[in-house]
Amino acid sequence: MNTGAVLANLRQAVGAAHVLTHEDPSTDLSRWERDWRGRAHGRALAVVSPGSTAEVAAVIQACAAHGVSVVPQGGNTGLVVGSVPDDSGRQVLLSTTRLNRVRELDAANRTLTVEAGCVLQTVQDTARDAGFLFPLSLAAQGSCTIGGNLATNAGGTQVLRYGNTRDLCLGLEVVTAQGQIWNGLSGLRKDNTGYDLRHLMIGSEGTLGIITAATLKLFEQPAAQMTAWASVPSLPAALDLLGLAQSRLGAGLTGFEVMGQFALSLVDQHFPQLRVPAWRNTPFAVLLELSDTESVEHAQAQLEQVLGQALDEGCVSDAIVANNLTQAQGFWHVRESISSAQAAEGLNIKHDISLPISRIPTFCDRAGDRLAHAVPGVRIVNFGHLGDGNLHYNVQAPVGQDPQRFLLEQEAAINAVVFDEVRAHGGSISAEHGIGSLKAHTLPEHKDPTALDWMHRIKAALDPDNRLNPGRVLPIQAR
Amino acid sequence: MNTGAVLANLRQAVGAAHVLTHEDPSTDLSRWERDWRGRAHGRALAVVSPGSTAEVAAVIQACAAHGVSVVPQGGNTGLVVGSVPDDSGRQVLLSTTRLNRVRELDAANRTLTVEAGCVLQTVQDTARDAGFLFPLSLAAQGSCTIGGNLATNAGGTQVLRYGNTRDLCLGLEVVTAQGQIWNGLSGLRKDNTGYDLRHLMIGSEGTLGIITAATLKLFEQPAAQMTAWASVPSLPAALDLLGLAQSRLGAGLTGFEVMGQFALSLVDQHFPQLRVPAWRNTPFAVLLELSDTESVEHAQAQLEQVLGQALDEGCVSDAIVANNLTQAQGFWHVRESISSAQAAEGLNIKHDISLPISRIPTFCDRAGDRLAHAVPGVRIVNFGHLGDGNLHYNVQAPVGQDPQRFLLEQEAAINAVVFDEVRAHGGSISAEHGIGSLKAHTLPEHKDPTALDWMHRIKAALDPDNRLNPGRVLPIQAR
Repeated sequence: MNTGAVLANLRQAVGAAHVLTHEDPSTDLSRWERDWRGRAHGRALAVVSPGSTAEVAAVIQACAAHGVSVVPQGGNTGLVVGSVPDDSGRQVLLSTTRLNRVRELDAANRTLTVEAGCVLQTVQDTARDAGFLFPLSLAAQGSCTIGGNLATNAGGTQVLRYGNTRDLCLGLEVVTAQGQIWNGLSGLRKDNTGYDLRHLMIGSEGTLGIITAATLKLFEQPAAQMTAWASVPSLPAALDLLGLAQSRLGAGLTGFEVMGQFALSLVDQHFPQLRVPAWRNTPFAVLLELSDTESVEHAQAQLEQVLGQALDEGCVSDAIVANNLTQAQGFWHVRESISSAQAAEGLNIKHDISLPISRIPTFCDRAGDRLAHAVPGVRIVNFGHLGDGNLHYNVQAPVGQDPQRFLLEQEAAINAVVFDEVRAHGGSISAEHGIGSLKAHTLPEHKDPTALDWMHRIKAALDPDNRLNPGRVLPIQAR
Repeated sequence: MNTGAVLANLRQAVGAAHVLTHEDPSTDLSRWERDWRGRAHGRALAVVSPGSTAEVAAVIQACAAHGVSVVPQGGNTGLVVGSVPDDSGRQVLLSTTRLNRVRELDAANRTLTVEAGCVLQTVQDTARDAGFLFPLSLAAQGSCTIGGNLATNAGGTQVLRYGNTRDLCLGLEVVTAQGQIWNGLSGLRKDNTGYDLRHLMIGSEGTLGIITAATLKLFEQPAAQMTAWASVPSLPAALDLLGLAQSRLGAGLTGFEVMGQFALSLVDQHFPQLRVPAWRNTPFAVLLELSDTESVEHAQAQLEQVLGQALDEGCVSDAIVANNLTQAQGFWHVRESISSAQAAEGLNIKHDISLPISRIPTFCDRAGDRLAHAVPGVRIVNFGHLGDGNLHYNVQAPVGQDPQRFLLEQEAAINAVVFDEVRAHGGSISAEHGIGSLKAHTLPEHKDPTALDWMHRIKAALDPDNRLNPGRVLPIQAR
């Protein structure tokens, strides 16, 4: 590789100001080179920030000409080490953050076309300012980009009603591994002219092409939202409540989160000011959210009716409907503080699993028993998006044990138990975070072999030189 | 090709009773060999009906061993000649109709796993008997199969609320071109472990693999449905009504169909007993359907409120809310009789196009002007799923002209105008019917060249010998 020639071509493609390298010792590239949970720190040949789709194509063509591979990056908030370069110093980091224009809002078609580098919150705000809702919502929304959300098919808190990111996208603009531009932007809700390349791209984590823009679906803003907190005597009871709420509220049910007692106790312990609602006498609590097209009064009546029936039927032992926005936000704040409370308690082993909803109780029983047997005293922080079958089934060291040592000694064994039970119950080892490089080596264990074979065939067909994000999703194969 | 050896292997794979050929002159294979609109009549080497997924795999392996290509077929109700053999007498017709088991209904997970050959109506009935709704609904539901619906990503009347067939499917079981079984059945709502092969398969019209089973999403049955008929003064007014109804009814709005005056006049003329509601004084009518989780009274109040506001704002000139089920069915009957009324009027040129909803009025103006100029007196039967941007923009000969001659002389010119305007307005030439062999030769004109290149690469990667449904979707390329 002729580094000088590569850099000259890149500077030609995007302008010298948008090519950063280690040549200048005062330049700190670590915000692009380190993943945000700090588990990987690579070294890039250059950080390149194209300002247009044509410039993205020119960058890829330059890299192809020199045999250099490319790692695309949006807000760099991913959780599976999918968007930072390896430590070879030979990969180009392509940052999409200058691709940040809102191209078109089509109110009558209820679509919004934005470039990949737009921050999610900007997309949400643009929709809201026009009287619409863009429902994708997740913790990193102030810094993650819509391109990254699409590349990883992000989930979040509104999946129950609106689906994953893939369900919110009608069309894409993509630069291929050969530096060609595919103009697949489309505001169409129906288009049966050939293979669905949009869905193939979404969730492919930058390994098949680079998303440069997208046309997104917009929805009506709800007239009212109402939140409730319910104590449930068991996980099967939580499932009964879910079924009841779905049949009575239909698409109005926009949130259904479950939280185990130990998870809530951590919030209570580390953030006592949050006032966790009645958690001491119940093994699980559920947070319900209803979005209503009519009014606050209608929403409240609807939610109270469902909870009243649930109390009668015994699947709820106690319930509070938030009587103002502050109380509703307080409920959500408790839910969203579980991760931080857990961090305050010490390092832990995190999982992002999904299961058929019907099998969650049995999974939790079996995995819990096996973990308690394998590591006496182990503490399980069980919470998640129950309505989507998605649990963050995290494992904390026994009281008094050094968390660092616990991780070092037990992580492999605990993952083996959890993933074994996930498999036995027809689940997935990555519900919403993706594979990245963190899980790429484990994918062959968990994926149907024919599906894995198809993935390799498709990668080889679209990116035969392994130009784009090599080693992510699919482990690099010996030729 | 050694025909005797092929047939022997096929009989070994599925049993002699399930291999039908022309060897026995009393066997009539035309129900499998002729497409249902009668535009193509091929000749099969054999009609093979496997009874299990393993048998499908064995059939494909036998065909691969002998270099024979395979045309999969479900209910054979497709509209683009995608499921009948060519006239070479060398293709095996694989009928999925014996794969007709309901494998599992998981109420708590709201999923139903069925084999590909299940008739759509059976799927609907199975869901309803368990208290759920499977919302896919279309004219051929009494004979089309769910495998065919998935292979063609069928649309229908409930897309506005529930999406196309792809949006109703969580997992697939597929036999590949090599005769391998991919077990991708899954009841998961979130699964980010690699490329989305399910969406790649759905809509690929049997060219990438053979769907043998699927896990489908179920929904709550609405407590009430309410239907209304509204006269609107223009297409922009119809769009205003759509926006108003979506913002006020949200996901409750499950149908929004538009019908032009000439389309309604044909129903009135050929089926006077249907009593088309007030159509003489309005250029367009809209059929609205509201599905409600509460009650008939609530649904009626909601719909009346929206229509009242629409009357005040002038986007509706007249409206009737059906006051009983018979009247509601009557409204739908008018809508569904447009095709037959048109057939009664004579042969015509059919289109299944989609557009960004915002561009429908301009498209109709421009296409209408150009067609009137090209063929004076031409009559446009304009109707469709306005809420999805999907029009069946059909063209009827001028009064007194021989329809057969009109088709022969004008079809190419009329298609050229319509497709040119579709392209100019960012639309699609096939919204819900697919490509099949009827439109395969035109796809290269209408598809982005990079997208088309990707499609060829994917087909070559997954089916390098062009074993499955050759010449469908993608025209056969010279090597």
